[in-house]
Amino acid sequence: MNAIDNLVALLSRLPGIGKKSAQRLAYHILEAPRSYASTLAASLANLHEAIKRCSVCGSFTETDPCAVCSDETRDTSLLCVVERSSDVRVIEESREYKGRFHVLGGLIAPLNGVGPDDLSINSLLARLNSEGVHEVILALNPTVEGDTTALYLQKLLKETPLTITRLASGLPVGGDLEYADRLTLARSLRGRIAM
Amino acid sequence: MNAIDNLVALLSRLPGIGKKSAQRLAYHILEAPRSYASTLAASLANLHEAIKRCSVCGSFTETDPCAVCSDETRDTSLLCVVERSSDVRVIEESREYKGRFHVLGGLIAPLNGVGPDDLSINSLLARLNSEGVHEVILALNPTVEGDTTALYLQKLLKETPLTITRLASGLPVGGDLEYADRLTLARSLRGRIAM
Repeated sequence: MNAIDNLVALLSRLPGIGKKSAQRLAYHILEAPRSYASTLAASLANLHEAIKRCSVCGSFTETDPCAVCSDETRDTSLLCVVERSSDVRVIEESREYKGRFHVLGGLIAPLNGVGPDDLSINSLLARLNSEGVHEVILALNPTVEGDTTALYLQKLLKETPLTITRLASGLPVGGDLEYADRLTLARSLRGRIAM
Repeated sequence: MNAIDNLVALLSRLPGIGKKSAQRLAYHILEAPRSYASTLAASLANLHEAIKRCSVCGSFTETDPCAVCSDETRDTSLLCVVERSSDVRVIEESREYKGRFHVLGGLIAPLNGVGPDDLSINSLLARLNSEGVHEVILALNPTVEGDTTALYLQKLLKETPLTITRLASGLPVGGDLEYADRLTLARSLRGRIAM
């Protein structure tokens, strides 16, 4: 296999990149200044060296504990449980949340062989005891796996005095009723808010 | 800037990859086995080392001359002129063409400051004289720049005994009249074929 085909094969393993897109990217990189390929190569080679998982919350970070966990001004009574590290970034970018995070590292999905033991639930329970948390926000995707995992955690924490909440599910801001699917519309009705 | 943001910035410079997609790719690479990032890094670092431009036709190749130019069984009387090296790949994959190629390295685009002198037109003329070409196929995109370049080359070669042809423009196979734009439909009418 030649060097272009090799690069195309590697790129087409990325999510959302088919063979045609991979070819387009590979040729773009070839036509771009040589420095681009070498900078990108260096960035990738260095990536896992530079980025670790935070020993407290489990999100990707250069420093351990991460910037959020070591920030004294954050509200430690709030703990937001997310599936992946990238969800932390998304929520941080909304600038709406001032508590801390906990990354599960996945969702319960029996069909894929992922059970509760594969997620960082033990460390979650330990944190709930030691960090003085009052409210656990389950910020999991509104999918079958997300709902299953939220239900599991809710049952697990039922006996504790903790408040358990979920992100509101409903119409996207700027969205149109006409384009909303049935399930989203049903949820937004069930979760309707007094004005 | 941390290592993730750095990778996101680099990836979002690729065509068709916005900031959101770049973030998704970066986190995917982080969550994937470490060997993936290092293999991709090695492939990128090695790319410009392994791939050169063919000294005859100008397409990307590991050997010089490239596989097409050094293939004795190809029809040297046919020369297919393309914009970029990736176009050679696309035409080769159609398995319809048995002649040789010439990569212009761009299209005439006065607004972008690209004139005929920026393209490999001199080497094209030299090849036409030395290789015994009978027909030049202009396989340029049916865009303003592609049409301008085709017209320029046609005028340039008017006095020669060469046959100059262009790729047929019209409805895509499997396409639907209803979804064809006006210009494509007009061209497919103008270029209608006797059955």
